[in-house]
Amino acid sequence: MEQQTTGGDWLDHVRWDANGLVPAIAQEKGSNDILMFAWMNREALAETVRTGQAVYWSRSRNRLWRKGEESGHVQHVHEIRLDCDEDVVLLKIDQVGGIACHTGRHSCFFQKFEGDAANGTWVAVEPILKNPEHIYK
Amino acid sequence: MEQQTTGGDWLDHVRWDANGLVPAIAQEKGSNDILMFAWMNREALAETVRTGQAVYWSRSRNRLWRKGEESGHVQHVHEIRLDCDEDVVLLKIDQVGGIACHTGRHSCFFQKFEGDAANGTWVAVEPILKNPEHIYK
Repeated sequence: MEQQTTGGDWLDHVRWDANGLVPAIAQEKGSNDILMFAWMNREALAETVRTGQAVYWSRSRNRLWRKGEESGHVQHVHEIRLDCDEDVVLLKIDQVGGIACHTGRHSCFFQKFEGDAANGTWVAVEPILKNPEHIYK
Repeated sequence: MEQQTTGGDWLDHVRWDANGLVPAIAQEKGSNDILMFAWMNREALAETVRTGQAVYWSRSRNRLWRKGEESGHVQHVHEIRLDCDEDVVLLKIDQVGGIACHTGRHSCFFQKFEGDAANGTWVAVEPILKNPEHIYK
């Protein structure tokens, strides 16, 4: 893992997985909509608390990901919860721009299952609020 | 992995991880509260659709986990969502008994962060609705 510059018993209390990560769920304050799911390492969680804005660990880019660093769609964190097993984090956030998803939608969970087990399909049911080409310039 | 008895293109559409699993978030219909986080394999998701009740994959017990099989706290599934990367599932559910957590609480996310990065702590802020000893007999 990257250099550790973060301390505190509260971070030791989290049960990081073998890769030093935990799942993190971002839930919108007010609506309670689930906007996205990502991962955090120790530094990401410490930075989230320190800055009051959601910071994740990008597994694809292998670096800290300050949500909104490119899109401007920053997440202001109002509350942080930990689950009973201490291995999942829940953020209650305000989503700047109302768009959490890189597709330009409010939430990443826009594909709804329709049908039955033998013949099912996933249908995009949420509108694109902003063209991603205009989000990521 | 266990024997595959499940088919359907919609299952192939899910991006299962190296262990054949995806994260699954259970959200309460109506309140939109996030009740729990677990994992699903292909069979668990297929069984969830087939039965209309949440079925997870227990990594600790290495078998299908029909939520509520011991506690009676079954989850009736109203809607299933998939995220933009097709690697996280969201269930919208009705929680029988109003208790999702094995601690006897409504939600597993009952520990709230308080303090700051240098001196933080996790505080249990949700009531125990039923003594776990009376849930698991």
